[in-house]
Amino acid sequence: MGMRAGFIAVAMASQFFISRVSAGSEIELLINMLHENGTVSDVQYGRLTAELEQNKKQNQQLQKQLDEKLAEATKPSDVDVQVKGGLRVSTRDDAFSTELGGRLQIDAASYGGDPAMGDGTEVRRAYLRLQGTMYHDWGYRLQYNFANTGSNGKGIVDAYIDYKGFNYLNLRVGHFKEPFTLHEATSDNFVTFTERALLAAFSPGRTIGAMASHVQSDLTWAIGVFGDSVDKKEGSNDEDWGASARVTVAPINETGRLIHLGLAANYRDSGEAGTVRFKQAPETRVSGTNIVDTGLIMDTKDVMKLGVELAGVWGPLSAQAEYISTSVNRNGLNDVDFDGWYVETGYFLTGESRQYKNGKFTRPKPFSNIGEDGTGAWQLALRYSTIDLNDGMIDGGETDAMTVGLNWYPTPTLRFTANYVDVLEIDGGPFDRQEPRILQVRSQWAF
Amino acid sequence: MGMRAGFIAVAMASQFFISRVSAGSEIELLINMLHENGTVSDVQYGRLTAELEQNKKQNQQLQKQLDEKLAEATKPSDVDVQVKGGLRVSTRDDAFSTELGGRLQIDAASYGGDPAMGDGTEVRRAYLRLQGTMYHDWGYRLQYNFANTGSNGKGIVDAYIDYKGFNYLNLRVGHFKEPFTLHEATSDNFVTFTERALLAAFSPGRTIGAMASHVQSDLTWAIGVFGDSVDKKEGSNDEDWGASARVTVAPINETGRLIHLGLAANYRDSGEAGTVRFKQAPETRVSGTNIVDTGLIMDTKDVMKLGVELAGVWGPLSAQAEYISTSVNRNGLNDVDFDGWYVETGYFLTGESRQYKNGKFTRPKPFSNIGEDGTGAWQLALRYSTIDLNDGMIDGGETDAMTVGLNWYPTPTLRFTANYVDVLEIDGGPFDRQEPRILQVRSQWAF
Amino acid sequence: MGMRAGFIAVAMASQFFISRVSAGSEIELLINMLHENGTVSDVQYGRLTAELEQNKKQNQQLQKQLDEKLAEATKPSDVDVQVKGGLRVSTRDDAFSTELGGRLQIDAASYGGDPAMGDGTEVRRAYLRLQGTMYHDWGYRLQYNFANTGSNGKGIVDAYIDYKGFNYLNLRVGHFKEPFTLHEATSDNFVTFTERALLAAFSPGRTIGAMASHVQSDLTWAIGVFGDSVDKKEGSNDEDWGASARVTVAPINETGRLIHLGLAANYRDSGEAGTVRFKQAPETRVSGTNIVDTGLIMDTKDVMKLGVELAGVWGPLSAQAEYISTSVNRNGLNDVDFDGWYVETGYFLTGESRQYKNGKFTRPKPFSNIGEDGTGAWQLALRYSTIDLNDGMIDGGETDAMTVGLNWYPTPTLRFTANYVDVLEIDGGPFDRQEPRILQVRSQWAF
Repeated sequence: MGMRAGFIAVAMASQFFISRVSAGSEIELLINMLHENGTVSDVQYGRLTAELEQNKKQNQQLQKQLDEKLAEATKPSDVDVQVKGGLRVSTRDDAFSTELGGRLQIDAASYGGDPAMGDGTEVRRAYLRLQGTMYHDWGYRLQYNFANTGSNGKGIVDAYIDYKGFNYLNLRVGHFKEPFTLHEATSDNFVTFTERALLAAFSPGRTIGAMASHVQSDLTWAIGVFGDSVDKKEGSNDEDWGASARVTVAPINETGRLIHLGLAANYRDSGEAGTVRFKQAPETRVSGTNIVDTGLIMDTKDVMKLGVELAGVWGPLSAQAEYISTSVNRNGLNDVDFDGWYVETGYFLTGESRQYKNGKFTRPKPFSNIGEDGTGAWQLALRYSTIDLNDGMIDGGETDAMTVGLNWYPTPTLRFTANYVDVLEIDGGPFDRQEPRILQVRSQWAF
Repeated sequence: MGMRAGFIAVAMASQFFISRVSAGSEIELLINMLHENGTVSDVQYGRLTAELEQNKKQNQQLQKQLDEKLAEATKPSDVDVQVKGGLRVSTRDDAFSTELGGRLQIDAASYGGDPAMGDGTEVRRAYLRLQGTMYHDWGYRLQYNFANTGSNGKGIVDAYIDYKGFNYLNLRVGHFKEPFTLHEATSDNFVTFTERALLAAFSPGRTIGAMASHVQSDLTWAIGVFGDSVDKKEGSNDEDWGASARVTVAPINETGRLIHLGLAANYRDSGEAGTVRFKQAPETRVSGTNIVDTGLIMDTKDVMKLGVELAGVWGPLSAQAEYISTSVNRNGLNDVDFDGWYVETGYFLTGESRQYKNGKFTRPKPFSNIGEDGTGAWQLALRYSTIDLNDGMIDGGETDAMTVGLNWYPTPTLRFTANYVDVLEIDGGPFDRQEPRILQVRSQWAF
Repeated sequence: MGMRAGFIAVAMASQFFISRVSAGSEIELLINMLHENGTVSDVQYGRLTAELEQNKKQNQQLQKQLDEKLAEATKPSDVDVQVKGGLRVSTRDDAFSTELGGRLQIDAASYGGDPAMGDGTEVRRAYLRLQGTMYHDWGYRLQYNFANTGSNGKGIVDAYIDYKGFNYLNLRVGHFKEPFTLHEATSDNFVTFTERALLAAFSPGRTIGAMASHVQSDLTWAIGVFGDSVDKKEGSNDEDWGASARVTVAPINETGRLIHLGLAANYRDSGEAGTVRFKQAPETRVSGTNIVDTGLIMDTKDVMKLGVELAGVWGPLSAQAEYISTSVNRNGLNDVDFDGWYVETGYFLTGESRQYKNGKFTRPKPFSNIGEDGTGAWQLALRYSTIDLNDGMIDGGETDAMTVGLNWYPTPTLRFTANYVDVLEIDGGPFDRQEPRILQVRSQWAF
């Protein structure tokens, strides 16, 4: 896609024009012969060889100039332009780059069972992203969500500065995802189902903070301290603060073969407000209904979460599982503990493998694309997911959900997904003993 | 504007270097002569012709290399960059493109007569748009309105995916305009007056849905099913749904000569809420006052609208007219029927013709531009417009408006407009027997 | 950074290939000698010179073709692409350009003393900007703030059209800063401290209007009439309107040496609402607390403000001072007068000078950058700032603040700032006799 030209060809050219000078050697040979024969006198020979010599030198000089001009003409341009969805412009030396990207997720859902949820449509996410590199060592990103959905709605998604001047180590300040769990680290563009599993209720999400992270081929770690989310306003109260850390290893990490292990911890002081709340929708966001909900838990001192991750890829087959335990530490009251876990597996009918890099799953690469005489990539998937928000006097509800999904990636930048979610009986909470069912489809572009 | 280089020149070069080898033929001739003369012996002749042959071959090879290098140096770049307002980058084969565009409309208005409306200023629309093509067959768009006006305010405008892999046929899913009426199909950048006619009260606007459309030179049709607008939230109620279809023909469609005929239908189920409301401002949006307004019509089952379109262009003169009838079907109550129509005509003083493509009017092309020693395009226009929201027990009001307008397009990307709207006596509704007058100006860039 | 190629080299090439034709002169010389010697007969000589002549002509033509091809191959591309943060694409003749830029400011603050303010973090500004030039004479800009802070929050920042077709004179219509005071004219990216001085309470900010401005090397003036801010809605009341004018001179204006003088006036009619309010935060925006506040001043007819500016640069040292007086003219009540002033000074430890252009301070240029083996630019700064909102029956409060700041510009596009603000005793108003202290840091990218 870029504007290229060959350095190798240029190097060849240099030799080529030097050697070329010898190409007129037959005239030199003839002159010498005629001189030897006596046809050409010594005086004439002298004038001829002088002329020959001068012309040779002149030729060499001219050919050097041509050489230089050709080198210049075939020099690659200073900037490279990529246009495979969005736009990426970079300098040849990668000291500077600017990237314009975006994502759109359009959902439609139909609900069955109880509780009643509104069938309908939604723009789930509509992102515009500007990011880049400046002066070799500096990175930046601004990403905004234009979609006005209830949770995770309209507002700044990512807004940060990176310093990349140290080996393997990255320093980041701004608004971004706290490092916690594999399903959070993996972009919503590339998670296996339309929505993350029920335990995403425990996700710290994006907050303003500072983070150090380290990436080597099969090992990553990240640690950071964080204030509040960009959209939370505390008035004259001090903000909450927290800290997150995550470490992952991939003892096997080859094309189409992966074992991933991860461990993460997340701490959050509850600040002057002293409250916390956990709630979760049934793996759908077209309707805003939360089927489990602790309500505001008062007198909270702080919350500690631990997460364990396990994932693997064997050719077209992939699987991942996570467990999160959450401890709410309260003032003068008993602590309450919640937890959740899921196991999911996916299989590419078209033979592709799930892509993995730096402790998270990334963009799938179909073997062939629609629009290029191909079929895209087709993936079947199954998930079992559970969350328990019942503990002590807190009756948030406990529920399990079984989801079957079909993903079609016509190209690396597009995805169409159908999910059927069967929520098994809810136990406790606002919708005790109810059992909703969801059929939802998503159309997505992302780059 | 693009980065080009010539294929033709490259083709020429190939022949040129082959033929060039013959340029040293005088030395060959001389050697042959000297051999014939006996000046050069047979042995010497053998050495000379061998040398000559070798040098010829070497020359041919070197010239082939030069040929290749020049071909490479003059190869067109892989991407084309356009910068005539906004930015468009595409690959040579048009398989990929990315376009960044926008629009700004700044209004000022002064009001006379009754009811009292607030004189003032407004940013009517401020759009940013990212769109493109991916893998030949796929298109996308995300367009957002940053302007916080009352109606049609801040929020997602367009957000969709296109599949263009079939001949003439386009499939679209996402948030976009339902296909209904000519004035809706025509961008607000290019409608003849600052605001659409009064019957725009019946426009379905943009909703989330799926549409198939077909475009051949003089025939278009489109049909789609749709949910709600992106900004409408229904809670646990099911969303409304609807369907739209439109067909247009242009029996005459040449440069500067057009006859356009169109027919469209729009159906909307009123959903669980069971209400509908029609209201309209007096062809101005700086003040938010609606001069006709049915209020919420309760117990509504569904609404059916029909639209008829007629338009023509004769050189600098253009005209268009539309009629919409709207039937509100109610539960246990009599149906109510509303309607509206307008006739408008425009005349380019500078001689340009209104541009038309694929069933809608498009960007005007001034014969000459300000900034390039030109005058831009100047257009005078006149419209008569009416809407009737009175029927049975519904007293929404009936009104007519006469508008005279002047448009100046200094360049294809700019427009300055002045409109004087004289609302003839309002009959019924919240502002019965009142007669507002509006003078408004708009400054616009759009690309 | 751009895509370049050399015109000079092309010019050289033309001469080079013409002269080259003479390079085969030794064969001509030999033929002549052999003819003179009698080795070559007259008939043979005739054939040889004819062959020679033909080949010469052929060579000249071929070399002309090569010349043209090389000229084409080394022609500069039609567009220039800049990528030093954001993106700028322009045509060679600068008739068209498109620029995509942005800014991000992330703040963290800790408060001491009284009143209690919430420690925390904030995205102070997150801008995306599209601007450009079209058809030589026209400019446009759309800039939006995604950051949802209390004051100056989410919304359109700049949205305008420029006409630049007259010498030195610029005409602008749209939403932009009224011309008033030096600290307002200077971008918040480049003011010396994280927040502007206390007298910024009197800033008219951005409104919708029309302005004529004039820029010559050492003289600028601007005058405009304005309606309301884009986010203010007046319903059926007429909007406020106002007018602003500013003139600046720079009798000394060389690299590293500057004397700047400025004078500005701002008038605003209070419209049908008839109220005005002045309030100010203690040079911090993480907490939304205003330490001085007049509350709504009723029965206001109009407000007149005058501003005086003085600034200078002496090598790494810079200083600036401003005074604003504000007169509130009331119906049937005594006028009330408020005022404010500040003096600030900065010193670049790394030797740079503050940059100035067209009546305002602009982007600093570090001598060396982090990421290019440099240190960036380091600047120490001190400010004394005061505002008095007490007059007659209005008890808004009077306060003074002393601020010490450290700025680090690792590159021209980045800035890290630490400010310590010591508010001296507040006299009157809602926080009478209180004394807050603020430590705040900002991380910023801007381009």
